[in-house]
Amino acid sequence: MDIQTVLLQMKDTAFNARRIGMAYQILNEMMTDTKCTKFLSLSGALIPAGMRSLLSEVISRGIFDVIVTTGATLTHDLIEALGYPHIRLQKSFSDIDLRKKGKSRILDATIEDQAFEKLENWLRSLLAKANDDGSLKGTISPTILLKELGLAISDQISVLSAAAKRNIPIFCPALTDSMLGLHVALLGQEIDLRIDPCVELREILDISFESKRTGALIVGGGVPKNYTLQAMLVSGRSLSYGVQVTMDRPEHGGLSGASLEEAISWGKVDPQAKIVTVVADATIALPLLLGSLLE
Amino acid sequence: MDIQTVLLQMKDTAFNARRIGMAYQILNEMMTDTKCTKFLSLSGALIPAGMRSLLSEVISRGIFDVIVTTGATLTHDLIEALGYPHIRLQKSFSDIDLRKKGKSRILDATIEDQAFEKLENWLRSLLAKANDDGSLKGTISPTILLKELGLAISDQISVLSAAAKRNIPIFCPALTDSMLGLHVALLGQEIDLRIDPCVELREILDISFESKRTGALIVGGGVPKNYTLQAMLVSGRSLSYGVQVTMDRPEHGGLSGASLEEAISWGKVDPQAKIVTVVADATIALPLLLGSLLE
Amino acid sequence: MDIQTVLLQMKDTAFNARRIGMAYQILNEMMTDTKCTKFLSLSGALIPAGMRSLLSEVISRGIFDVIVTTGATLTHDLIEALGYPHIRLQKSFSDIDLRKKGKSRILDATIEDQAFEKLENWLRSLLAKANDDGSLKGTISPTILLKELGLAISDQISVLSAAAKRNIPIFCPALTDSMLGLHVALLGQEIDLRIDPCVELREILDISFESKRTGALIVGGGVPKNYTLQAMLVSGRSLSYGVQVTMDRPEHGGLSGASLEEAISWGKVDPQAKIVTVVADATIALPLLLGSLLE
Amino acid sequence: MDIQTVLLQMKDTAFNARRIGMAYQILNEMMTDTKCTKFLSLSGALIPAGMRSLLSEVISRGIFDVIVTTGATLTHDLIEALGYPHIRLQKSFSDIDLRKKGKSRILDATIEDQAFEKLENWLRSLLAKANDDGSLKGTISPTILLKELGLAISDQISVLSAAAKRNIPIFCPALTDSMLGLHVALLGQEIDLRIDPCVELREILDISFESKRTGALIVGGGVPKNYTLQAMLVSGRSLSYGVQVTMDRPEHGGLSGASLEEAISWGKVDPQAKIVTVVADATIALPLLLGSLLE
Repeated sequence: MDIQTVLLQMKDTAFNARRIGMAYQILNEMMTDTKCTKFLSLSGALIPAGMRSLLSEVISRGIFDVIVTTGATLTHDLIEALGYPHIRLQKSFSDIDLRKKGKSRILDATIEDQAFEKLENWLRSLLAKANDDGSLKGTISPTILLKELGLAISDQISVLSAAAKRNIPIFCPALTDSMLGLHVALLGQEIDLRIDPCVELREILDISFESKRTGALIVGGGVPKNYTLQAMLVSGRSLSYGVQVTMDRPEHGGLSGASLEEAISWGKVDPQAKIVTVVADATIALPLLLGSLLE
Repeated sequence: MDIQTVLLQMKDTAFNARRIGMAYQILNEMMTDTKCTKFLSLSGALIPAGMRSLLSEVISRGIFDVIVTTGATLTHDLIEALGYPHIRLQKSFSDIDLRKKGKSRILDATIEDQAFEKLENWLRSLLAKANDDGSLKGTISPTILLKELGLAISDQISVLSAAAKRNIPIFCPALTDSMLGLHVALLGQEIDLRIDPCVELREILDISFESKRTGALIVGGGVPKNYTLQAMLVSGRSLSYGVQVTMDRPEHGGLSGASLEEAISWGKVDPQAKIVTVVADATIALPLLLGSLLE
Repeated sequence: MDIQTVLLQMKDTAFNARRIGMAYQILNEMMTDTKCTKFLSLSGALIPAGMRSLLSEVISRGIFDVIVTTGATLTHDLIEALGYPHIRLQKSFSDIDLRKKGKSRILDATIEDQAFEKLENWLRSLLAKANDDGSLKGTISPTILLKELGLAISDQISVLSAAAKRNIPIFCPALTDSMLGLHVALLGQEIDLRIDPCVELREILDISFESKRTGALIVGGGVPKNYTLQAMLVSGRSLSYGVQVTMDRPEHGGLSGASLEEAISWGKVDPQAKIVTVVADATIALPLLLGSLLE
Repeated sequence: MDIQTVLLQMKDTAFNARRIGMAYQILNEMMTDTKCTKFLSLSGALIPAGMRSLLSEVISRGIFDVIVTTGATLTHDLIEALGYPHIRLQKSFSDIDLRKKGKSRILDATIEDQAFEKLENWLRSLLAKANDDGSLKGTISPTILLKELGLAISDQISVLSAAAKRNIPIFCPALTDSMLGLHVALLGQEIDLRIDPCVELREILDISFESKRTGALIVGGGVPKNYTLQAMLVSGRSLSYGVQVTMDRPEHGGLSGASLEEAISWGKVDPQAKIVTVVADATIALPLLLGSLLE
């Protein structure tokens, strides 16, 4: 039984199976709407969880026009590109032992400390050179920096690389909240390079303003979700399509778990929009949804 | 892409995707262990959610030897067998309006009040007749009653019917906590029929005692989960295989969300057992897991 | 600052603080409504968590008229009455080690295996004697059994004892899903004693029928929640007051996390009822709510 | 009964009651450690939820040395300071109606659209003047901007004002992900003002480096949590005290729900640290914890 058939059957059930079926249908409609600018908001440790090749394939195929994500996701992408894959943990472990061995844990995946040293060296060399030749100099938008990084990577299954090749902008409004942003900040004391998040904000607003319609697949919450929805609010281009995949819930009032219905009151989502929230771990939902869309 | 391939790929990822991949592997091993008595513990409104044909197919194929479930699940199965399917709700509704229209809601599914009247009449007629001819008379185990109900149903995709045909016992330790149990209790004032949960308990203990090894797929928590694990504890046949699919979490101390590791301390699960908990809505996880097992 | 003041202030905030403030207000109103029969539905390992003296005090004070609970809660109450308190675990432990030491774990509390042996011996002796003198003989309602157990306990802070002394019935529709029920079932092979859950069901329905109004504090979900609400449905006495304290959520369709609004569609809750769901660990919410009510 | 007594009693129970009791104890120890730099990480809509006066009181009393928070929290603080309180919603509402009425919803609280117009005008006037007189000119750290805003507010119960008066730095690494940041970005096209998150990052690292010991109260997850822990990692000052209050869970691998134990593997938390995670809505936990600390 293929997953598309399963998703279509689920649409006629109830609870979250019905919701994931509806999500598939909405994403399908969004994909075929050529007047719709498609946003992909990514939070959560998707790359340590093994979703990297799926995400890069989706980006390579041009299904989305804009990516909004966290500095952590881009850091994870870079260190895998530099040859340091995340390793799955076996059942029994001790965080104190992991620390002694120089392995950092993300639930049941680990990464070696050496990966971050490699990242630092690679960035230092790349940015110094780009600063010298003027390609990355002065005050720039993070999107420019991220595109340069993507072009510098040879790894075929990188999110940054796939986006750079297709000229899909990556917005990362909290870049300094990551090891990637940290090294940029530290290098900024040595070379003439500053990132300006205000320029980046005006860029995403321009893209939204110029859109006839908008749609979004929102994976997890956090800054990427809010920043995507804020662009809709400010540009007046409320979402016509909205699919949210999250384990967060609304009852304690955080933005991450807030319903897409609530976003209607803000003007972030159109009252007539096709929307659904799937309460599921993205590592299960994305291979089904994106895997089916790719076929 | 077929779902078996997806599950096998998920096994090499992390978080809950890895867990559902492991669950598939463990269930596969359990299925091929001919010395293992296989328990299926079912909680949650799986039949209103549209899982009925999947569950009845799994039961018909003899994958499990014992079913432990709630009175609600059996009630849902019966009213669907009597011609009253659960209907999916559209987006906008009011519970007060539903009440006026005689429709009762389970999240996004509804059932008509008439279904329960039909159930009452059908049960009244069936049990009176069975009481007359002596097939259901005096003090009996709920398992006897449930088998008779299963044999009386002609509907091919019924859980009760599938179990009765294959002679798979259904244990329902809280039968009076359901409309099915209610009608049995009310009829017990008119005819000579009583259910004895102590006899039922001794039956499941006997099955456990006589098992060489045991395994369980535990869907949701509640009484079915605890009753299944209690049988392992008392019989000394701690689970060798255990897969738990639930959205409940351990942090507030309830049995429903308790880890299978905790059950090792009780002797309910073997220290060497192959176990995994998948944090996912069963309506998404079961079609993947059971659908793959059926192939 | 006293907790009553804090709860009253919380009523004017938002999210779950507002909800717990509303819960306090609703419970206060319910308490002063002399025409209202008050149900207390208890699920979750409240006694291992240290809520025993709070619960027994609430029961002693006659705040509730009816208790519906799990066999596990009553088992926990009995073993504490027999001198085996639940011991809090320190941070680091291994479930396999606990098993070797004969300690069973409930999240971060443990109980010794000896407690269950003591329980068995105590029950065996008590029930044999009661059977001999005719006080517990033949087919009885679980409520009769539970009252006898309560009267036999000398411990002042026991839930069973407090309820028995005030003649408050305890309903336990899944008694065989517990060590207490297990020993009753095993003794039933030696002495003339059977429990009949159908009699028990008719008892709670009678109490509901005879009520002018009903109200409930529902702690956790499971069978106690459903059984309480079922009594309202069948008796036509939909709740006028309803407070639910739970960490379960509605999105996956289980009864435990179902909203009280959904219960309106069933006729279990009155459309005009004062209702609120507090999403909080009961071990935090109950000392605040019940502690304030006791003052 | 006062809340301190309740928290001390809870320490001897189990589950989350025990955890909140431990949290109180750890925060108390942290408060009296004069060599410890204390971080307060704030996520979630705490001000719409009514926690503003509690938070500003805690800041005024100097309990924490550093605040890390979201742009939304600072925006909420400003619009309340400008005379637009968040209003609690009554039970029944429609998001489409709210949109028509110009009210935006955060679960059960709303804010009028006019508040954001007022904010824009106030910021425009303030920043233009500060730009003219040179107090806010060129490329600055967000912390400088936020202090100026705090000093400009006359409202006594403002978080920004309280922090500015005591010279407690506020870090907001995703400032452009908020209406406050948006207006700064748009004004940056008219006046000579840019914010530099890299300068801000170096500032928090300097504070961490200069600390003998560090401790943190982490409310909710998101960027504030990660940014706080990242500062510990990079500076080598792993937390000696850590209290986390959240409804997020670890099972799906997101940073927001990650355990403090996991942070040990990264070197963000000391292996000997006193740590606890309280799974509770912050609107319930903070009035108890912070209210007790204030006494």
